[in-house]
Amino acid sequence: MELTDRIHERIKVHRNSTVRLLQRLVQERSVSGNESAAQAIIIEKLREIGLHIDIWEPNYAKLQQHPFFVSPRSTFIGSSNVVGIKKGLGGGKSILLNGHIDVVPEGDISQWENDPYSAEIKDGKMFGRGTSDMKGGTVALLLAIEVIHALNIPLKGDIIFQSVIEEESGGAGTLATITRGYTADAAIIPEPTNMKIFPKQQGSMWFRLTVRGKSAHGGTRYEGVSAIDKSILVIEAMQELERTRNEKIKDPLYQNIPIPVPINIGKINGGSWPSTVADEVRLEGRIGVAPEESMEDVKLEVERQIKLLTKKDEWFAEHPVELTWFGARWVPGTIDLEHDALKTLKNSFKEVLKREPVIEASPWGTDGGLFTQVANIPTIVFGPGTTEVAHHPNEFIEIEKVLEAAEVFAHMIVEWCNN
Amino acid sequence: MELTDRIHERIKVHRNSTVRLLQRLVQERSVSGNESAAQAIIIEKLREIGLHIDIWEPNYAKLQQHPFFVSPRSTFIGSSNVVGIKKGLGGGKSILLNGHIDVVPEGDISQWENDPYSAEIKDGKMFGRGTSDMKGGTVALLLAIEVIHALNIPLKGDIIFQSVIEEESGGAGTLATITRGYTADAAIIPEPTNMKIFPKQQGSMWFRLTVRGKSAHGGTRYEGVSAIDKSILVIEAMQELERTRNEKIKDPLYQNIPIPVPINIGKINGGSWPSTVADEVRLEGRIGVAPEESMEDVKLEVERQIKLLTKKDEWFAEHPVELTWFGARWVPGTIDLEHDALKTLKNSFKEVLKREPVIEASPWGTDGGLFTQVANIPTIVFGPGTTEVAHHPNEFIEIEKVLEAAEVFAHMIVEWCNN
Repeated sequence: MELTDRIHERIKVHRNSTVRLLQRLVQERSVSGNESAAQAIIIEKLREIGLHIDIWEPNYAKLQQHPFFVSPRSTFIGSSNVVGIKKGLGGGKSILLNGHIDVVPEGDISQWENDPYSAEIKDGKMFGRGTSDMKGGTVALLLAIEVIHALNIPLKGDIIFQSVIEEESGGAGTLATITRGYTADAAIIPEPTNMKIFPKQQGSMWFRLTVRGKSAHGGTRYEGVSAIDKSILVIEAMQELERTRNEKIKDPLYQNIPIPVPINIGKINGGSWPSTVADEVRLEGRIGVAPEESMEDVKLEVERQIKLLTKKDEWFAEHPVELTWFGARWVPGTIDLEHDALKTLKNSFKEVLKREPVIEASPWGTDGGLFTQVANIPTIVFGPGTTEVAHHPNEFIEIEKVLEAAEVFAHMIVEWCNN
Repeated sequence: MELTDRIHERIKVHRNSTVRLLQRLVQERSVSGNESAAQAIIIEKLREIGLHIDIWEPNYAKLQQHPFFVSPRSTFIGSSNVVGIKKGLGGGKSILLNGHIDVVPEGDISQWENDPYSAEIKDGKMFGRGTSDMKGGTVALLLAIEVIHALNIPLKGDIIFQSVIEEESGGAGTLATITRGYTADAAIIPEPTNMKIFPKQQGSMWFRLTVRGKSAHGGTRYEGVSAIDKSILVIEAMQELERTRNEKIKDPLYQNIPIPVPINIGKINGGSWPSTVADEVRLEGRIGVAPEESMEDVKLEVERQIKLLTKKDEWFAEHPVELTWFGARWVPGTIDLEHDALKTLKNSFKEVLKREPVIEASPWGTDGGLFTQVANIPTIVFGPGTTEVAHHPNEFIEIEKVLEAAEVFAHMIVEWCNN
C-alpha cells in the first residue's frame, strides 16, 4: 500500500480516541497560569506514543533577560512547557511541531450557547474555548505522530513536538524552548488557518495611547476640554495610518486580505463621572506588523503619526498624547517561498487532499515569528479551525478538518524527515 | 446705626469663629454615607445660636415612592438631615435657607497640592473638598443667622435653615425635607454662583448609551464591527443635538453662557482586549435641561436623535443604540423675575456690596428645582465660591466672599422676614 493510503486508513483507527483526546483537552480550562491539567493530558499521550519527554517550568528571571521576552506574568511556577522527542535514525531533516496549550478566557459566558468547556459535539463540530485556537491543531500533530508510530514508519530526522504555554500573551513559552536549545530544520505551527498554508505571518504589537483633556463640571463643559472629544481625533489619526500603511503593501500573498496589517483599537476607557468633563482617555490597541517589517520601524511610524496630531489640533502641542508599547508582542515571520519544507507541505497537501492548497500571508502573529527571527528556524503556519471563531463565544472546530490536517502532517513529516 | 452698618460691624466680630467653623466642616470628609460628623458640627452651631433643631434619617422606603426620588443608595441609615428653625413673631414672610452637607469624593489625590481635607488657608483662600461646594455657602447662612441672633433683631417671619444630605446624587435629602412638610415663602440656596444671582436653574439628567459592535480578532478586524468606531457617530449625534437645542434658547439670562444647556459625555468604556474588535461601548453623560423645559420632553428629544442614527449608518438599524436614564437627576427651577424675594435679594446685594448684582441663569442644577417643582417654593441660587473649582482638585473658596455673602443674607433675611 502507498504511504498516502496507509496513513489514510490508520487515521480512521485512531479517530475515536483522537476525538476523545481533544474533548479532554478542551474540558481543561487552560488559561494562562492554569495549564497543568491540560499539559498532563498531553504528557500522557506522549508517553503512550513512546516519545522522550522533557517537562520544565521556564525560568522567569533568566528568560526576562531575553530581548524578545514579553509577558504579563511575574512567574512561570506551575506552568510547564512540554516537549516530546522522537529521535530519527540519522541523516534526515528534523521537524519541529509546535502548539500552544494556553487559551484566552471564555469572556462573557452569557454569549455562549453551552458551557465553554463542555467540548460538546454537534453536526461534526466540537464546541468550546480552545477547540480552534489551538487544541485542535495540537491534537492533529499528536495524531500524525501516533500514526507514524503505529505504522512503524522509520524516520531519519527527528520529530520535536512542543506544547507550549503563553502564546496568547506573546510567546514566552516558545521563547523558552528556544533558549533551552530546541531547534530543527523546519517548523510547523497548526494555528487555525482554515487549512490554508501561511508562509508569512503578520507580527503585531500592543500600544496604549493616553489622551489628555481638562476636567470641568459638565454644566459648564466649555470651561474644560473633553479627552473623549480629543480621542476621536486620535482614533482618526490611527485609521489614517492604517490606510497609508496598507496602501504600501503589494505582496500577492496579501491579495485576498482586505487589510493586510490592520490597526485595531480594542479598548477605550476614560472619564470618571457622567457630569464631569473627561480629563483622560486611554486607548489600547494592536497594530499588525508585515512579515518584512521591523518592529522598531513600525513603532517610529506610529510615533510620527501621533506627533502630527499637533497640526490638526493645537491642544496636542501642550498636551501630547502619550504612546506606550505594552503587553503582548508577536514577532512577524516569513519562510522563503522556495524553501523545501514549504514545497514538501504543499505536495503532501495535494497528495492527501487531492486539491491545490491556498497559500496566503497570515493576518495575525504566531510563535512562528520567534522561531524565524530568534532561532532562525523556517516556519510554516497551517492548521484546522478558523480565526473567525477563535477568541469568540461558541468557538468550535470541524472534527473532519482535524483528521485531514493530521493526515497532511503525517505525510509531510515522513517525506521531510526522510528527505 | 443703620441695619446695614450694624450687620457689617457684627460680621467682623464673628469672623474668626466663622473661619474656624468652616475649617472644621471641611476637615470632615462628608461624602455620601459619611455625613454624620459634619452634621454634628452644624447641630452644635444651631444649638449655640438658639434654633429649634430637627434631626432625622430620611425613610428610604417611604421616600422611594416619590416620583421625584433618585438615589444610588439603598438606605439612609446613619445619614441625617438637619433643620434649624427660628420662629418669627408672626405676620412676616418665611425664608428657607438650604445647603447640602455632602461633598463629591476628592478624586485623584495626586492632583491635590495638599490634603483635600486640610482646610488650609493661603492668601485669603481656604482649600479643600467642599469649600466652594458648598460648605462655604452653608457657613455664610449660619453666620447670617448668628448675626441676626447676636444683634437681637426681631423677625416676623420664620427662618428655616436646612443642612441636607445627597444633593450631589440628585436631591434625596432636600426631597425628604419637603415630604416632612417644610416649606416657606421663598428659598435661598447658596451654591457657588460666584456671587451672581441665579433666578433660573438648569436641570440635568444622566444618560447611558450602549453602542453595539461585532467582535473579531484584531488581525482580521474587517470581520468584525468596532463598537468604538460606531460610538464616534453616536458622540457626534449628541454633539449635533447639543447645537440644535442651544440654538433654540433666546433667554437673555443665558446671554453670557456659551452653552446654556450642554450635553457632556463624561465617561466612555468599551472593549475588553487590545487585540479584539470591541463589541460594546458604554457612553455615560449629562444633559442640561432648560428651566422651562420638561424632563420628559428632553428625554424624547434624545430618543429621537438616537433613532436618527439609522439614517447615518445602517448598522444601527439592526443594532440599535440602547438609551437608559440612570443615576442622578436634577430638576430645573425658575422664579418669577418680578418675585419680591428676588427684588429683596437684589436690593440687599446693592445695599451691602454697593454694586449691581449680575443676574444669570445657572448652568447647573441644584436642589432648587425640587423646591420649585415639587414644593412650589420660589427659589434663588446665590452664593460664594465658584463652580470652576467645585468637583476639582485644589477646590477653594475666598474667605472674604463667605463673609460678604453672609452680610447680604443677613440683610435680605431681615428685610424679607419683616416684609
